[in-house]
Amino acid sequence: MTTKLKDIQNSADLRGIDIQKVGVKDVEIPLIIQRKNESNQTVYAKARMSVSLPKHYKGTHMSRFMEVLNEWREKNLLGVDIEGCLKDIMNRLDANSAELEFSFKYFLNKTAPISKNICTMSYDCSFEGEIDKNGKYTFILGAKVPVTTLCPCSKEISDFGAHNQRAIIKIKVSYDNDKMIWLEDLIALAEQCCSAQVYPLLKREDEKFVTEQAYQNPKFVEDVLRDVVTRLRNHPDVNWFKVECEAFESIHNHSAWAFQQEGVL
Amino acid sequence: MTTKLKDIQNSADLRGIDIQKVGVKDVEIPLIIQRKNESNQTVYAKARMSVSLPKHYKGTHMSRFMEVLNEWREKNLLGVDIEGCLKDIMNRLDANSAELEFSFKYFLNKTAPISKNICTMSYDCSFEGEIDKNGKYTFILGAKVPVTTLCPCSKEISDFGAHNQRAIIKIKVSYDNDKMIWLEDLIALAEQCCSAQVYPLLKREDEKFVTEQAYQNPKFVEDVLRDVVTRLRNHPDVNWFKVECEAFESIHNHSAWAFQQEGVL
Amino acid sequence: MTTKLKDIQNSADLRGIDIQKVGVKDVEIPLIIQRKNESNQTVYAKARMSVSLPKHYKGTHMSRFMEVLNEWREKNLLGVDIEGCLKDIMNRLDANSAELEFSFKYFLNKTAPISKNICTMSYDCSFEGEIDKNGKYTFILGAKVPVTTLCPCSKEISDFGAHNQRAIIKIKVSYDNDKMIWLEDLIALAEQCCSAQVYPLLKREDEKFVTEQAYQNPKFVEDVLRDVVTRLRNHPDVNWFKVECEAFESIHNHSAWAFQQEGVL
Amino acid sequence: MTTKLKDIQNSADLRGIDIQKVGVKDVEIPLIIQRKNESNQTVYAKARMSVSLPKHYKGTHMSRFMEVLNEWREKNLLGVDIEGCLKDIMNRLDANSAELEFSFKYFLNKTAPISKNICTMSYDCSFEGEIDKNGKYTFILGAKVPVTTLCPCSKEISDFGAHNQRAIIKIKVSYDNDKMIWLEDLIALAEQCCSAQVYPLLKREDEKFVTEQAYQNPKFVEDVLRDVVTRLRNHPDVNWFKVECEAFESIHNHSAWAFQQEGVL
Repeated sequence: MTTKLKDIQNSADLRGIDIQKVGVKDVEIPLIIQRKNESNQTVYAKARMSVSLPKHYKGTHMSRFMEVLNEWREKNLLGVDIEGCLKDIMNRLDANSAELEFSFKYFLNKTAPISKNICTMSYDCSFEGEIDKNGKYTFILGAKVPVTTLCPCSKEISDFGAHNQRAIIKIKVSYDNDKMIWLEDLIALAEQCCSAQVYPLLKREDEKFVTEQAYQNPKFVEDVLRDVVTRLRNHPDVNWFKVECEAFESIHNHSAWAFQQEGVL
Repeated sequence: MTTKLKDIQNSADLRGIDIQKVGVKDVEIPLIIQRKNESNQTVYAKARMSVSLPKHYKGTHMSRFMEVLNEWREKNLLGVDIEGCLKDIMNRLDANSAELEFSFKYFLNKTAPISKNICTMSYDCSFEGEIDKNGKYTFILGAKVPVTTLCPCSKEISDFGAHNQRAIIKIKVSYDNDKMIWLEDLIALAEQCCSAQVYPLLKREDEKFVTEQAYQNPKFVEDVLRDVVTRLRNHPDVNWFKVECEAFESIHNHSAWAFQQEGVL
Repeated sequence: MTTKLKDIQNSADLRGIDIQKVGVKDVEIPLIIQRKNESNQTVYAKARMSVSLPKHYKGTHMSRFMEVLNEWREKNLLGVDIEGCLKDIMNRLDANSAELEFSFKYFLNKTAPISKNICTMSYDCSFEGEIDKNGKYTFILGAKVPVTTLCPCSKEISDFGAHNQRAIIKIKVSYDNDKMIWLEDLIALAEQCCSAQVYPLLKREDEKFVTEQAYQNPKFVEDVLRDVVTRLRNHPDVNWFKVECEAFESIHNHSAWAFQQEGVL
Repeated sequence: MTTKLKDIQNSADLRGIDIQKVGVKDVEIPLIIQRKNESNQTVYAKARMSVSLPKHYKGTHMSRFMEVLNEWREKNLLGVDIEGCLKDIMNRLDANSAELEFSFKYFLNKTAPISKNICTMSYDCSFEGEIDKNGKYTFILGAKVPVTTLCPCSKEISDFGAHNQRAIIKIKVSYDNDKMIWLEDLIALAEQCCSAQVYPLLKREDEKFVTEQAYQNPKFVEDVLRDVVTRLRNHPDVNWFKVECEAFESIHNHSAWAFQQEGVL
């Protein structure tokens, strides 16, 4: 049987092309995530993981990605551990660069502003890591934060009311490897930059509060973006960021959208 | 070669199971749609088409669905023609029942309320047809109509402002085969049942108008649903309907939702 | 403040329409699920929950759905508990019917056929429950199971090889309230009805096994459907089922699809 | 009314942040696309369009994007015209850079290899354009091409058969503004780099052909990627490209994936 099961992937390739990234995508996997000031949370991630492949190899060994993912899912993950996971796959596949992305829903308790009722709310978050061929490790933390925006133009020109809508703030940040930014803090940063926050559970007194707060605090997507950019520029640990704000306009069937990317990865 | 290419599908099956529906799904296909008072519109549909399969056959002939779809895409489609398309596939596959569904974006010109600017806007629409084993033909017309809803509770309890958001009204109707309901009329019916309509292009004077209109016209999803249900109950040609209203709440990260189904198919 | 915060939802409605379903949709929520022969698993569900609303009420109280969901997410859920959750929301909203749906990814360890390597694999699953206005409780268990299908026609007519592809078997079943069907068993039932099972982690000796197994075991979507239907008809506890098999054809850009629904809910 | 309808967007902003991109997203719009050697085709695009916004302006004027899109949808679009569209929005919004993206389904007739039956098939395509603040125009053409891949390892190690699956080749290319690459040619380039092509309509003799062709032509995602990269490196007009190949593995519930990006934009 061993003569039969030839390792085709290890056979020579003559096209002379070093492949930048090859691996697995859309792998569903549970992960244990470190939380700030709380016990860990198991999340369910969609994962992509890849390595570089030198020109003389025909193929990579896909099953080893699954072995590494299956082992690392038992560990508590944040920036430092992503690096360990990448080094592991590089060792097992004899690769000189690797990258991965985990996207997952992260749950936090959120307290209503007046009633103080607590309910759980989910945020789409991500961990991305890369070790390049010079051995440099980069980690990117991502969060998508739903908020309310209320249109300043609509408020100004209308005799009463103002259109408002759910919007989403998408932030990705990179920071020094000896620092740590928590998802909890990144989400809180975004939630300070809107007309009003979004909550899972609001009683009537809360609804009155957020309605009036949004009306007194109108913001375009441009305003939200600038508020987030200001905070990220002033953050001592952030080296690079990408921010998007998209408002699912209540008066249109399309979105208003703003985008900014700054810093060096 | 003819001896080689055995018709496996026609071979006998011994499990004794009449299959209710078998066919193709997620077929992308252009269709020509009749418009009310206008020239036809080519749309791009996602199609499903199936037939019943008697227990003594192992399989249906999938390529014939594609032949029928490829021929019928050249014809002008509405209820009557869906029936022809179904009869065609029943004949070619010697089946005693068949059903299909076409889902597509349909574009209409929409005029802003004050500036009278005209711009195109898309609606997710569908045609569904079935011929059952007794030969009875049923046609279902579907449209999803984006609108604005403004919350009556939020308006009532707040000193100023009121949360509002994009919502979607989903309507499916069935009517007598000798009658005709146009997509244009079904969409207009839905657009009469909201706090304010949604437009592709609004200038400042239009934005003032829709903002104030929504504020003066607050509606829960329950209100929108009841308004649509009232109109459909009173429609002389509608035999059956299903209505959903879903509001993408601006103060939450989830939707408010209402549902009603009445009549006989 | 109490005079201010009027309960608009409780105000009278004059349209005379009893609403069948009104509630919340696309709520993201963690749930604790009972597993067969194992400790519980926390999953992340997308939830819909609704009640009926009598014609004399203008609106339901949406925040109470979130309160109920937030409380019940701490309990171990399966059929019996869904009923409790429905009764709870009916009590709090004074409704005479209610329904809910939880959709979630469920993770099981899967063992490779030869190497016996174990890796985790996810399945899209669902719990649906309804208490109708006569007090009758119905529970529906759902699972979507990825498998391989290899085309019998392609194998028969070709001198070598046969096209094969990933397919998905979608099963929903309802059973007597004093019985219990585990997701583990429903998934295993589906995995017995394909050309070969799908695995998260396969070493070379496993890949040889599944390749040859699929080739020796060709199945149309019709075959898969009939195999599943046979097992469900013979299952002593199943009162009703709905089965779909969809094959993402490797030689086409569309799917082959088969569907069957039997029994009484 | 003119005193009332103040132009809030034109008011001053004090945060000192030049916004890189602000505009509209998820606009559904019909477009007229030039085809190679054929009459034009109307497609339905999902559009994003944005401009830069200097720090001293509070907001952009979103309605002007819709005006420009609504006018340009009547024109025949390819690279040259995207530039005109971008210049138009820059003029109307007094912006010094702009970018847009149109994503749409593009339909081509595809001829079965033996029966020569012709049927329509759709491809997800895109036009992206940007004029940067130095006035440099860049155009990127994109196509996603479904194909079949048959696993070389599975074929080698198995006594019969080989797993195969639908895969998708995603290509984006940029080329000199005085050159022209047609979608038809980009799609054809991709379809030369697979185990077998995917067709909308195959009769039995065609199915035999593609089954045997795939078996005799096994390819990993790495092979497909290298074949595409070789062709793009040798293409006289391509300045920059990005290629992905993703195979929806028939033996797994995840994808194999390869990626390459080369050249200068």
